[in-house]
Amino acid sequence: MYENLAIVGATGAVGRLIRQLLEERKFPYKTIKFLASKRSAGTEITFNGQTHIVEELTPESFAGVDIAIGSTPDDAAAEFAPWAVERGCIVVDESGYWRMKEDVPLVVPEVNPEAIRNHKGIISSPNCSTTQMVVAMKPLHDAAKIKRVVVSTYQATSGAGVAGEKDLVEGAKSVLNQTPYEYQAFKHQIAFNLIPQIGSEKYEGYTSEEMKMVHETQKIFGDDSIQVCPTCVRVPVTNCHSETILVETERPISVAEARELFEKTEGITVVDNLGAGEYPMPLTCSNKNDVFIGRIRKDLSNPNGLTFWCVSDNLRKGAATNAVQIAELLVRSQAAV
Amino acid sequence: MYENLAIVGATGAVGRLIRQLLEERKFPYKTIKFLASKRSAGTEITFNGQTHIVEELTPESFAGVDIAIGSTPDDAAAEFAPWAVERGCIVVDESGYWRMKEDVPLVVPEVNPEAIRNHKGIISSPNCSTTQMVVAMKPLHDAAKIKRVVVSTYQATSGAGVAGEKDLVEGAKSVLNQTPYEYQAFKHQIAFNLIPQIGSEKYEGYTSEEMKMVHETQKIFGDDSIQVCPTCVRVPVTNCHSETILVETERPISVAEARELFEKTEGITVVDNLGAGEYPMPLTCSNKNDVFIGRIRKDLSNPNGLTFWCVSDNLRKGAATNAVQIAELLVRSQAAV
Repeated sequence: MYENLAIVGATGAVGRLIRQLLEERKFPYKTIKFLASKRSAGTEITFNGQTHIVEELTPESFAGVDIAIGSTPDDAAAEFAPWAVERGCIVVDESGYWRMKEDVPLVVPEVNPEAIRNHKGIISSPNCSTTQMVVAMKPLHDAAKIKRVVVSTYQATSGAGVAGEKDLVEGAKSVLNQTPYEYQAFKHQIAFNLIPQIGSEKYEGYTSEEMKMVHETQKIFGDDSIQVCPTCVRVPVTNCHSETILVETERPISVAEARELFEKTEGITVVDNLGAGEYPMPLTCSNKNDVFIGRIRKDLSNPNGLTFWCVSDNLRKGAATNAVQIAELLVRSQAAV
Repeated sequence: MYENLAIVGATGAVGRLIRQLLEERKFPYKTIKFLASKRSAGTEITFNGQTHIVEELTPESFAGVDIAIGSTPDDAAAEFAPWAVERGCIVVDESGYWRMKEDVPLVVPEVNPEAIRNHKGIISSPNCSTTQMVVAMKPLHDAAKIKRVVVSTYQATSGAGVAGEKDLVEGAKSVLNQTPYEYQAFKHQIAFNLIPQIGSEKYEGYTSEEMKMVHETQKIFGDDSIQVCPTCVRVPVTNCHSETILVETERPISVAEARELFEKTEGITVVDNLGAGEYPMPLTCSNKNDVFIGRIRKDLSNPNGLTFWCVSDNLRKGAATNAVQIAELLVRSQAAV
């Protein structure tokens, strides 16, 4: 039985949400501990009505722990995951560090739940911009095989952590009040502006965030022939990533068929009534776990193309929700044994 | 000689910019008059150091006028342009009303200057989101024939006029101060949000703004075989439209070739150094007349594809600058005769 839990990075923005989701979803456990860097150790946390003290993350933190859900920077994940695995603990990791390693399944429960079987102690949760896209792709891919994806993102500042959210709010105030503000998370002013760069320069003019959307998508579908052309842009929105997605499939999919496929997929909510001004927006999708789809249209430039608008809470389905769902899969798979 | 000018809609956001551009560019004229609706008539305007009184727009306004540059709502343009044409005045019109009429050239001076020759009294300037895209497409199309375009827009609130700009500023204040604000230009909150609808429902789930990008592009290039798949999104940015543009050409274009083609095109400025965090942004392109291009990359999903990021001031090149440039073309063509 997986009954002893640890939450690593428990005090961060995603860590907080993971705690909240575990409560909301009545995640089964016997013991739980909350781990963080030295800086945050000692913080008091209330979880399911009990007070816990955040402990400093050390190798021994994982003794007797069955599942650790981690949301930390890449370098912390690189260090702590082996500590956990050595002690027989399975790590569900939100960071980017382990995702593309050969022995690490990269899992979105709606898309490739079977991949968790192959874990060797670490299971990765994908990058936020990838997760919502592959959830949307899955029913179309099953029905008509996706060969190509062109995606442009509109990514919220919460994806850059608490400092990103602060940069937007304080930056907006500084513009409106004409007072100075020094941006911390972003290279440029994000308030009332756009930054067409997320992550660092990675490959042939693409950023690291963009290449995650390429490689993670191929890994999740287990199909390197799916071609992805991404452009990732930071927008002055607090929370929820949005994406224009164009897919080309082996056989044409009509709007009606796509809508039906989306509607019957768990984890997807369709909001699509242009005439009534109804479509997903960051404001209406925030604090929800689903991937929202609207503006479903035939691609005017290719008979085998279909295009749509996709919004999801990047801190939830893009991070915390997906990680908790992976942990739930683990628990269910164990229960089935 | 075209020496007697009229500016129609002289008090609007674009009208103000047209006046400013005529001054900046030392547009040649003997007389100039400023026309507007009854509501704005009587307003005092200073132009080239002289005080002018805005006159009410009537059929007789155009007597003796050679060129009228109009920036008005569609219904006003539908009414005033025939008044002008009947009196021998050539209309350069910014509105959407005349653009797709068969006898009306739709002109972007960098792209199809020769089209002005065929006017029958009215010359249209395209929609803002189209203009910057066709300027960017032109050198690539000349070099390698563009067959297909996939474009996602990030459009500023200034595109919805003064009320749009106000909605963003007052909306942002209302969110930050937690006070109520009723949006006027937009159906939904635009501050810290995205609205994936510009214009009304038009064709097969596409909006009027999106269909303008399809039809105007084909008309400007005189080539209905260019396939365009657009998604237009309003973003909480004050000024400058941005676009991710993916083109597929008859023969592959390398990044180096594209860059060279862009760089030698008048009206385009390339800003493309991802490693140094340099690319066009609304904040850096505002109040400039050029179309700015960055993030030039090979399409990872198609060998004949090329993708890039394109930003331009929607009130300038997307409206006022293009209209003034058309008027300049007219003056030069007359001078040549």
